[in-house]
Amino acid sequence: MSVIFTSAEDAEQAFYEAIGRGDLDALMSVWADDEEIVCIHPTGQYLRGPLAIRDSWRSIFASNSRLTVHVKRSVCWKGLLIAVHSVVETLYLGDEPTPHGPMLSTNVFQRGANGWRLLSHHASASADPGSAETGSAPQAAPLRTLH
Amino acid sequence: MSVIFTSAEDAEQAFYEAIGRGDLDALMSVWADDEEIVCIHPTGQYLRGPLAIRDSWRSIFASNSRLTVHVKRSVCWKGLLIAVHSVVETLYLGDEPTPHGPMLSTNVFQRGANGWRLLSHHASASADPGSAETGSAPQAAPLRTLH
Repeated sequence: MSVIFTSAEDAEQAFYEAIGRGDLDALMSVWADDEEIVCIHPTGQYLRGPLAIRDSWRSIFASNSRLTVHVKRSVCWKGLLIAVHSVVETLYLGDEPTPHGPMLSTNVFQRGANGWRLLSHHASASADPGSAETGSAPQAAPLRTLH
Repeated sequence: MSVIFTSAEDAEQAFYEAIGRGDLDALMSVWADDEEIVCIHPTGQYLRGPLAIRDSWRSIFASNSRLTVHVKRSVCWKGLLIAVHSVVETLYLGDEPTPHGPMLSTNVFQRGANGWRLLSHHASASADPGSAETGSAPQAAPLRTLH
């Protein structure tokens, strides 16, 4: 039985925690049960569908030491059925103290019978190293509820 | 008086046509009237708010020859108030026959009193040159209506 996320924020937290644990099943359970889910990596790799996305993350987990992602929400838009978060990710590899990134991600969530799930994760490298942790670009995370 | 876009598709078409004409006012009129709009360029530049976004596109239009963007929708998700399109952009500069890109973009639209407007445009370079025009990665553009 899968977990029901009652908010896009909960689903997003579970997504990044699963990355932190290298837990492929937990990671995949955050995605919507849909053939059309999309994941775009900072490398420019475009993945569509659960099989391609699972394969990619399996490979990422296999070839990296522990990944810890610190996430700062920049802007959130919330509809009845879709929510979108623009976030800044700072990545730590293993016990390295120096962060990688920052990455800019647009995360799209859908509300369905099983709560909120991830439809799309689009990540790309930020040009601004200052936005890692220090937050020079994105500041607070105002929640824009549209309904 | 600004144009009212009756669908996210119309707003998206107006966005790319404005880029093709180098028409800054038309481009900005597609965005939602909101301080929290977001534009992420393939360079990794993160822009928030209409002033920063306008300045950036003014500079892009000033320093480039005519830009023509061919857009192929990969996946679209449509809620009552928010729609998200995952698209592949192929860019032509001036009269050059060889395309640049492809770029992968996640475009987020909001339905308000003035129809559909752009909330966020997140573009990054694709790792797959074959997805330009030939469409090796994204195929059709199934519209996922969630309501």
